[in-house]
Parts: sequence; C-alpha cells; structure tokens
Amino acid sequence: MSTVDFRFWFEFGSTYSYLSACRIENAASAAGVTVSWEPFLLSPIFTEQGWDDSPFNVYPAKGRYMWRDLERLCASYGLPFIKPSRFPRNGLLAARVACLAKALSEPWLPDFARTVYRANFAEDREIGDAAVIRSILDSLELPGAELIEQAGTTENKRLLHEQTRQAGELGIFGAPSFVVEGELFWGDDRLDHALAWASSRSAENSENAR
Amino acid sequence: MSTVDFRFWFEFGSTYSYLSACRIENAASAAGVTVSWEPFLLSPIFTEQGWDDSPFNVYPAKGRYMWRDLERLCASYGLPFIKPSRFPRNGLLAARVACLAKALSEPWLPDFARTVYRANFAEDREIGDAAVIRSILDSLELPGAELIEQAGTTENKRLLHEQTRQAGELGIFGAPSFVVEGELFWGDDRLDHALAWASSRSAENSENAR
Repeated sequence: MSTVDFRFWFEFGSTYSYLSACRIENAASAAGVTVSWEPFLLSPIFTEQGWDDSPFNVYPAKGRYMWRDLERLCASYGLPFIKPSRFPRNGLLAARVACLAKALSEPWLPDFARTVYRANFAEDREIGDAAVIRSILDSLELPGAELIEQAGTTENKRLLHEQTRQAGELGIFGAPSFVVEGELFWGDDRLDHALAWASSRSAENSENAR
Repeated sequence: MSTVDFRFWFEFGSTYSYLSACRIENAASAAGVTVSWEPFLLSPIFTEQGWDDSPFNVYPAKGRYMWRDLERLCASYGLPFIKPSRFPRNGLLAARVACLAKALSEPWLPDFARTVYRANFAEDREIGDAAVIRSILDSLELPGAELIEQAGTTENKRLLHEQTRQAGELGIFGAPSFVVEGELFWGDDRLDHALAWASSRSAENSENAR
C-alpha cells in the first residue's frame, strides 16, 4: 500500500460528499491508497465567504442544476437517491461522532459516515436529530447512547472545531475535498485525479527511499 | 453520426472553457456526436447572481484553487498553460466574431475559438484588443479587418445578445456548459458525461425511429 498521506475532507450536509463517501474505498483500494477520513463543518467556511446558507440555496440556478446532476450521477454510480425534503441538513452531531471515531481510531468511521449519508440523501431522514444518529449507531451494533454522550464532551467538540480550522488553513472552501501532501483537490469529480496524484507521489517516494 | 442536438456553450474569458474547447472535437468524434459551438457572455449572467467580477476573483480561496487545478489539468491533457497576467479578459469582440461565424455557418469557428483560448491561457495575450483578434483571424488566413467590421454591426451584436439570453433561459450559470436535448451539464469535468448522455439518447432515437 502507498505511504502517501491521503485525506478525505467531508461534511455530512454536502451532496457531492455523499458520492465520494460511497465511492472512495473501492477507488482508493484499486489505486493502492489508504484514506484518512476527515470530518469538518462547512458552515463556518461559508460564513467567511459571506453566505449564511448553502451556495446551492443562495444561487437558485446552481441549486436546480446540482439536484439534477446529483440524480444523474447517482444513477450512473448505482447509488440510491431521494431528494431530501430539507437541505442542507445539520451535520453537527454526526460530525462530532465522526470526530470521536477518528480520535479513537475506530474502524467503524467509514461505515458510520456512509450510513449517515444514505439516511440524508437516499432515505430523507433528519440526520440533525440525535435519535436518528443514535439509531444509525445502534444499527451498526455500536453503543449509540454512549457514543452520543462522548461526542458531546467539551474535548470532543474542540476536536471538531480544530478540524474545521485546519480545513480552512489547507485552503478548503467546499466539500468533498481531498488533500495529498499539500495538494488540494475539490469535488467528487476530482477523486480519480487525486488518487492518481497520490499513486504517482507514492512511486516517487519509493524511488527516493531506495 | 448521431442526430442528437449537442450544444457547447462557451465564454472566451472562462478558464475551464479553454480545456473543453481543446478537448471537445476529439472526444465528440469518438462518441459519434456532432457539436454546435455556442458563444455567449457570462458577465450578464454573473451580474444577475450579484457578482460584478468572476467568482474566482470574488472568492479568493476558490480562485487560488482554480489556478492550481487548471495547471494540473492542462498538464494531464498535454495542453500549454501560462497563468494570464489579467483575469478575466474581455471576450466580447471574440464572442461577436464567433457569433458571426455561427450565423454564416463558417467552418472556421472551432479553430478560431481554440486560437483565442490559446492566446488567453497559453500565450498571455490581450484578447480584448481588436488588434489581437485581427491577428488571430489573419493567422487563420481569414480577412481579419473585414470580419471584425462585420462582427460590429447592430445585427450581429443583437445575435450575441440573443445567445446570452438563451443561455440564461436554458438555466446556464457558468461555462463551459453542454446542453443535450434540454439536459444541462456544467463544467469541463462533465464533458464525458454529456457525450455519453448524447450517445444514449441517439441510440434511443434510432430505436424509436424504426
């Protein structure tokens, strides 16, 4: 496997992050790349850009296009899709749980993330509700109530805050984003390019290590 | 060849339109699709969205990313690239000439467009200057001075205005955009998806015609 640092920055409210969350493990494995899952929040980053809502709501033509594009892409990737009755949903609690999983190096982070994305974009469930997040954790045979409590500690809240700060520092302005040794790639449509970049960096690193 | 209507909407100031202008003919030919080249202006559309400049200038993090992304994509497509010393450049005159070529069904429209894009994004030339556009036309063995004069008639100006109005009506909010029988695809990274859509529509149309 590659020793290149490949980071997948995702936000639970983000439509195109749903695609990447579902596609990334297979694609990365084919490219010989190991993925670090990096939860963060877009809203503080959007606020800095002067938006108090998703740009897909701020700019209606862009929003109408995005929903059709997403529907077509889901169909082409064989992913289920139902346009959520509310957008964007609040991904704060889910992101805190993901942060907790990351801090504890829990192997269930990717499964949890994909299940939350499916709830939001394929089942129209309210992922902002603690009851929904708890039922998702329970469905993965994890102690939902306990994990939600741990996710709410001051220390864990601070971790998510730090993730979001780091995302901004890396130049991230949207989700999904992929960062490979300082190179930023934005959008699900850049996943393959980012993985190819990682593979070629990995080959270079091996060459230099000889 | 396909009988499906495939329209490539481009703006001369747009960075990602440069990629599509250079890639589209080979890609379309491989997909059995014929392309109609549709010049328009983004600035009236941006104005409606509340921007008085390119969004890549309005949102600096997005702009910094775009230049790096473009550089990487040009390298991967084998296209020359020099970051222009001015962005965005005024594509009005070039778009008027392209409109004239379209109205007269001139076969040199794609060649002209690609040469203007290269001037802007690979040679850092001021495509807003009539002298540059004239020299480009002359280099294609066309009567530059005469064409520029024809491009400036009230009738031809009206044609470009009408193109831009149509683009807005089609839901276009950025460039490049591809429209296939009412389906909108936005961005150079959607070119392959748009062509695949056209191929499958073409197969359906043939099926129905039997």
